[in-house]
Amino acid sequence: MATAPIAHESQVLELADPLPLDGGQSLSGVRIAYEAHGTLNPAKDNAILICHALTGDQHVISHHPKTGKPGWWVRMVGPGKPIDTDKFHVICANVIGSCMGSTGPASPAPDGKPWGMRFPVITIRDMVRGHVALLDALGIEQLHAVVGGSMGGMQALSLAANFPERARSVLVLASTARHSAQNIAFHEVGRQAIMADPEWREGDYYAHGKGPEKGLSVARMAAHITYLSEEGLTAKFGRRLQDREEKTFGFDADFQVESYLRYQGLSFTDRFDANSYLYITRAMDYFDLAEEHGGMLARAFAKSKARFCLVSFDTDWLYPTAESRNVVHALNAAGLPVSFVELSAPFGHDSFLLDVPALDRVVEGFLNQ
Amino acid sequence: MATAPIAHESQVLELADPLPLDGGQSLSGVRIAYEAHGTLNPAKDNAILICHALTGDQHVISHHPKTGKPGWWVRMVGPGKPIDTDKFHVICANVIGSCMGSTGPASPAPDGKPWGMRFPVITIRDMVRGHVALLDALGIEQLHAVVGGSMGGMQALSLAANFPERARSVLVLASTARHSAQNIAFHEVGRQAIMADPEWREGDYYAHGKGPEKGLSVARMAAHITYLSEEGLTAKFGRRLQDREEKTFGFDADFQVESYLRYQGLSFTDRFDANSYLYITRAMDYFDLAEEHGGMLARAFAKSKARFCLVSFDTDWLYPTAESRNVVHALNAAGLPVSFVELSAPFGHDSFLLDVPALDRVVEGFLNQ
Repeated sequence: MATAPIAHESQVLELADPLPLDGGQSLSGVRIAYEAHGTLNPAKDNAILICHALTGDQHVISHHPKTGKPGWWVRMVGPGKPIDTDKFHVICANVIGSCMGSTGPASPAPDGKPWGMRFPVITIRDMVRGHVALLDALGIEQLHAVVGGSMGGMQALSLAANFPERARSVLVLASTARHSAQNIAFHEVGRQAIMADPEWREGDYYAHGKGPEKGLSVARMAAHITYLSEEGLTAKFGRRLQDREEKTFGFDADFQVESYLRYQGLSFTDRFDANSYLYITRAMDYFDLAEEHGGMLARAFAKSKARFCLVSFDTDWLYPTAESRNVVHALNAAGLPVSFVELSAPFGHDSFLLDVPALDRVVEGFLNQ
Repeated sequence: MATAPIAHESQVLELADPLPLDGGQSLSGVRIAYEAHGTLNPAKDNAILICHALTGDQHVISHHPKTGKPGWWVRMVGPGKPIDTDKFHVICANVIGSCMGSTGPASPAPDGKPWGMRFPVITIRDMVRGHVALLDALGIEQLHAVVGGSMGGMQALSLAANFPERARSVLVLASTARHSAQNIAFHEVGRQAIMADPEWREGDYYAHGKGPEKGLSVARMAAHITYLSEEGLTAKFGRRLQDREEKTFGFDADFQVESYLRYQGLSFTDRFDANSYLYITRAMDYFDLAEEHGGMLARAFAKSKARFCLVSFDTDWLYPTAESRNVVHALNAAGLPVSFVELSAPFGHDSFLLDVPALDRVVEGFLNQ
């Protein structure tokens, strides 16, 4: 189904006050790029904040300015869709540390040159502080809901824990309350791939051509495998050859899956900043909501009065169902209302972005209760 | 338990005849480096061929000449061990394409310069052709058994299928009859990491310093994650920090798992040739025993009279139990005697190399029936 392009310009808010960071520094002149869709009602109580994933951005339903592709969640958000912009005022903000308009390592530091690796290491909670500052500026005291998948779900959980008054409902998809050793390991491979590229130049590549494209491409390829399920890869590609009848006995991309991965890697470098990739993966690896709250996850939610919904996918091996169940147990222990469902979908971790009609029903049902 | 070093010199056989290859070429002057332990009986019917994995070598129980570490399977092979060198004559040969003495891309081509990427792309069956040529030279018509884990298991299956008279027993651990899309995808990440390193120089790095060490290190890191289980990584490392009390808010290896992976990557480059990594991963990706035999795996074993034993591990997500079961079904369809067990062990794919007493019993039992 063709959708008319939504050429929604991002808006950019510059924060008046410095943003305090978990690392102890504070960041002045922070800019937050965001998009809003649907009308904010006079009571300002129909807003939904959508939090994006690692390589996502604020273009939740508008076309991406660099790739020209439709927004990353057009199937879920829009008039009459599960997150209905006829009812709700939907806000999506680029996280700090990213590269689509919000302040990150590619942004100018006070000396006018790009921050590069001088940018402070940030956390998921720091990203959420940016979101909350945006809500303050918009005069939105309490969200109808905060919604996020993957790293977006971490932000939703962090907002619920650290700013318990700011959201009445919390919807967390395919996410986790802490990064596991395996999660960290895959991210470390990506970071090392970027840093191994001599074009990375210790992060100071902005004045020198295209930056560490090869390293970033390898990082994306490795990560991309973790977003898909083994079954999904087999169904989509199997051992089928790419535009050839026979193996070439060479190192071309003989197999479709090789060709696909190479494309995923290369195309990513056109739209994403390598240093942002370093900083955001670091923030995710540092994420451990229990650790932030004395080692007990239930304590993280001690001040919350929100209602929660968690969704996992049976083929997601990046953040498997056990991770969601862990959060549900903590919410139960905290006496909070929570619904939880593991959905069956063949797409692995990426299921939350793809065609899973059961997810649509869960999202719509939860937001309209 | 300390073991006295076994300073067994590798022997090297130069094949008299050119070795025909699946790619259509043939390779002259092929050298096969191997080690043998235990006495070959006068009937020459007590030999066991052990096939090594991707980054393994012939040093199955002797100390590695570069790292000084004990052989890779000392816990399984030796006097009184499950593969008992008091009873059996154990042979382990470095596969062609590798870099520990057998002919591979680092070896001199006819022009005296290293082959580099001029080396022909080889297959698992080509490796087995090398092994069979070695057995011919040693006067061993029929093995008591061929044994291998991971890529070694592919060689064992390939030998059973393509040289059905050469082994009475076939023992396959943590392996598969074909590489899946996900398997290929992970290997492709590794290859791209190597090829992205400018020090790779299109494979022509031998006269230029140390070669693509950074790329090879990243490739090894990515692969290493696939050898371990998520549970194993969590048990071994969890989110524990490395020699520090607090996160550094930097890009050092804060987490133990990062430090471990970096070490795995770096130390690998001291002992392994990057081009060999490209060629051997390619051979594994090309492996599809059914495809070689008209698309039906059972047909691959039509001429076999061997007895088989397959072992999988419940935490191995690289070659999960379903892959072994697939082989077992084919062997059943071919009417061959086969025993099969899925063992429980926390170490993921690497379980076949590690302390799993149940595996010892299976191996000893099968080889002494």
